Amino acid sequence: MPIIESIPNVSEGRRPEVIAELVRAIEAVPGVRLLDHSSDASHNRSVFTLVGDAAPLKAATLALFEAALAHIDLRSHSGEHPRLGAVDVVPFVPIEGATMADCVALANDVAASVAEQFTLPVYLYEEAASDPARRNLEDIRRGEFEGLAAKMASPGWAPDYGPAQPHVSAGASVIGARMPLIAYNINLNTDRLDVARKIAAAIRHSSGGLRYVKAMGVMLEDRNIAQVSMNLTNFQKTPMFRVFEMVKREAARYGVGILESEIVGLVPSAALLATAEYYLQVEGFNAGQVLENKLRA
Amino acid sequence: MPIIESIPNVSEGRRPEVIAELVRAIEAVPGVRLLDHSSDASHNRSVFTLVGDAAPLKAATLALFEAALAHIDLRSHSGEHPRLGAVDVVPFVPIEGATMADCVALANDVAASVAEQFTLPVYLYEEAASDPARRNLEDIRRGEFEGLAAKMASPGWAPDYGPAQPHVSAGASVIGARMPLIAYNINLNTDRLDVARKIAAAIRHSSGGLRYVKAMGVMLEDRNIAQVSMNLTNFQKTPMFRVFEMVKREAARYGVGILESEIVGLVPSAALLATAEYYLQVEGFNAGQVLENKLRA
Repeated sequence: MPIIESIPNVSEGRRPEVIAELVRAIEAVPGVRLLDHSSDASHNRSVFTLVGDAAPLKAATLALFEAALAHIDLRSHSGEHPRLGAVDVVPFVPIEGATMADCVALANDVAASVAEQFTLPVYLYEEAASDPARRNLEDIRRGEFEGLAAKMASPGWAPDYGPAQPHVSAGASVIGARMPLIAYNINLNTDRLDVARKIAAAIRHSSGGLRYVKAMGVMLEDRNIAQVSMNLTNFQKTPMFRVFEMVKREAARYGVGILESEIVGLVPSAALLATAEYYLQVEGFNAGQVLENKLRA
Repeated sequence: MPIIESIPNVSEGRRPEVIAELVRAIEAVPGVRLLDHSSDASHNRSVFTLVGDAAPLKAATLALFEAALAHIDLRSHSGEHPRLGAVDVVPFVPIEGATMADCVALANDVAASVAEQFTLPVYLYEEAASDPARRNLEDIRRGEFEGLAAKMASPGWAPDYGPAQPHVSAGASVIGARMPLIAYNINLNTDRLDVARKIAAAIRHSSGGLRYVKAMGVMLEDRNIAQVSMNLTNFQKTPMFRVFEMVKREAARYGVGILESEIVGLVPSAALLATAEYYLQVEGFNAGQVLENKLRA
């Protein structure tokens, strides 16, 4: 069975009884597994991680919208995290037996149903974007809920689905498809934050580096270690090993070495298998040779 | 559910109708999956790969013995491959959710039942061996079926289970537990077979190298490339990356580089994940962070 992951971000992180309702709405849908959820009170935001095939994921997403719209009113919502809607962002991610095209189709299908069922404007983003100007979530979300009515009235910001005005309490939602993110940090054997920042600038896309890397230099104050903190947004096109080797090379230019690296949260096995293939210079390998894949075929 | 792999080797590789009977015997047992089987006429031998939990694997092994003993008579058997019994060797391999201790217990359990049900002598080998002199299959099998009666009468060769004389038509069987084997070859960018042989001698256990490496130098005649051909018999204790780096270092001593490497057949994902962790210098990683493991937990 194909496996797609969805990571809806909802604008509620403070009321446990509402969060419990959202969890119940997702878990009531057969064929969907809620792998994880976490809530942040200062962000006033919750993130859910669910997996399943397209049809049950669509049903769970619609159930989540229904519960969220019943309980969340952005006119009285505040929090540190920028947000445009009650259900702020819903990405679909291909994991196994599903392609990016499947996830783009699912994003469109869900967006159309959400718009119709809840009379809610929906923007498509990332791989599902209808226009390059809408690929980046930050560009769509700029102005937030409070600036949404004015933004929607300005040229170029008609939604992809739904009405041309914000939903009075739920704003608008951003739905799309993207590759799995890998949160990857490399710790340097130095306390020089300037070195970590220079490496981050060299490696990240926004300042001339690798296409699918977001990076910044940060200080691990408790250990007095400088860190290059990264998000790898497409591990197939910008693989982990190339990022690691580039950071290592840039660090050497300052006489600095790599202390260790760190994978935060989940990582697709394909990202690590490709790394092993690279360093072992393996030729002619295929995923069917991995014993566990064979067992589950 | 725990997954154990079993790879019985049977002394019949020429009569398709007998091989089909053996396959049927295995496949009739619920809870066991026959992943693969192959037969070699010149070796006059067939190898089966099956997986399952302990109880169904035991049932399938006993069914295989019953079918094999009904059709195979070693007194009229010939082939290039050395053999001691009709069912020659049965290793049990821990794959997932099962330990080596589980496989040693299963080997003993199956050996006792085989000995009792078929009045057949059984030797335990590798991790299940009762004595260091019996760890290596080659030592147990030396003398083959034809020399078995004399060997069993000599000091130190009483079987671990069953009668002190060979079964008249089925000889004896060797049952045990071992780690998964990885067949791993490294191709050198040279046509010098002597270099591949020197590297093989340096890296293999038998001549002073790494504990869980068997290696030889061979020539890929069609490509005019020298190859270090290896079996890695315990990838946890002698990991792939250490083998690769040692071969690379030894090759450099002759001015030779590594062209590529090759994994033949199946490889446990843990062997490749450990390789990625090593080269990326990942700290604090656990298998639960691999997305696919999380999905299947």
